[in-house]
Amino acid sequence: MNLLLIEPDEIVEPGIARVGGRKARHVQTVLRKGEGQSLRVGELGGRVGRGVIEQVEDGQARVRYELTEAPPPPSPVQLVLALPRPPMLRRILGHATALGIKRITLLHTARVEKSFWDSHSMAPAAVREQLVLGLEQARDTVLPTVELQPRFLPFVQDQLDAWAGPGRRLVAEPSPGAPAPMGSTESTTVAVGPEGGFIPFELEQLGAVGFGAVTLGPRILRVETAVVALLARLMPP
Amino acid sequence: MNLLLIEPDEIVEPGIARVGGRKARHVQTVLRKGEGQSLRVGELGGRVGRGVIEQVEDGQARVRYELTEAPPPPSPVQLVLALPRPPMLRRILGHATALGIKRITLLHTARVEKSFWDSHSMAPAAVREQLVLGLEQARDTVLPTVELQPRFLPFVQDQLDAWAGPGRRLVAEPSPGAPAPMGSTESTTVAVGPEGGFIPFELEQLGAVGFGAVTLGPRILRVETAVVALLARLMPP
Repeated sequence: MNLLLIEPDEIVEPGIARVGGRKARHVQTVLRKGEGQSLRVGELGGRVGRGVIEQVEDGQARVRYELTEAPPPPSPVQLVLALPRPPMLRRILGHATALGIKRITLLHTARVEKSFWDSHSMAPAAVREQLVLGLEQARDTVLPTVELQPRFLPFVQDQLDAWAGPGRRLVAEPSPGAPAPMGSTESTTVAVGPEGGFIPFELEQLGAVGFGAVTLGPRILRVETAVVALLARLMPP
Repeated sequence: MNLLLIEPDEIVEPGIARVGGRKARHVQTVLRKGEGQSLRVGELGGRVGRGVIEQVEDGQARVRYELTEAPPPPSPVQLVLALPRPPMLRRILGHATALGIKRITLLHTARVEKSFWDSHSMAPAAVREQLVLGLEQARDTVLPTVELQPRFLPFVQDQLDAWAGPGRRLVAEPSPGAPAPMGSTESTTVAVGPEGGFIPFELEQLGAVGFGAVTLGPRILRVETAVVALLARLMPP
């Protein structure tokens, strides 16, 4: 936790928050901070700054804070991701959030196991927890939105064009393909398939709405490695 | 497993191998391949090609194969990594191997917990297993070497200069610093600190042997995210 992220219901009065549970424990036992000590603070969806711990009692910490700066700029990249298996989903949500991604669609494809959709990791609270951890890691405050699309064809044919908007559209594929672009501030939607990849029919459908294949080279990467690698290469120089 | 990686003791005669255990099970139950079916094969440290399953019996598979191509080119990047906690170490070894890294030094630093060095994940067989899984993922055959350096100062002062060799030397730091370079074929050694970073004294010592600070921007990333992001940005265009 590199930022104490304050949610609306934790604000006691403007500039004063009371946090409990995981956050209070983390402040005390991991950051080892007590009364009078300062730490970085941000309000969910708002600005960031510094706070001072005024009181720690009964598993709660009272923090007085001042918000002075904007959170780090968002990434211009949005992600369409074939739903990975649950532990990898949790990690990818953390990676993508920390890298500043603000819009994610989780998509069913032919090679996604149907049981993944029933995982506890898919519950809204479980998804949100990973996003919050990613924000705390990267000192960001702006939650990504995560949409679930359990039907490939209706989403890709009827909604993806509007969802992707005016920017560039890329689909990651093991070679052949153009090399994945580097260092860009251009608005971009990246689609990443499941382990085993999209099937040819799915690539055709994505191609029909403007997604061009890009590759990270001859090495076949796990989805988790590929997502971080693509997002990192696309990051502004 | 995108490649059946054959080790010397599995070669029955030139061009014929017998594999058992995890590999045979994976071929049967995950790849769902049986007699007469073909798959990608490589010899450890050697070339890659295709094989045909001649027989599956008693948990063993006999494969006849022909090696026709070189494995994918190695990365020109080598990694000096503060020892991460065991589950993250396992994943990072997989990521780095899949991305083609061939030399890794795991280093003790002030913010590395001493107990990490006693983990089961540090046993040579456990490290090797992650490297092999990374090779199978990326269809590579050349095992990385992993060195353990449980003492920071003797390694950095007396050995790191020779270990790094003639190439560029970078140390990843949260900002400030120059932006992490992109798309390069230059020989490069990258040093990545633990969660919480190198301490100033360690950065000075690294600086004294030519390691210049680079950053991935204002976001503080987990070590796992940062390693993949750095390696991906450094990958050739």
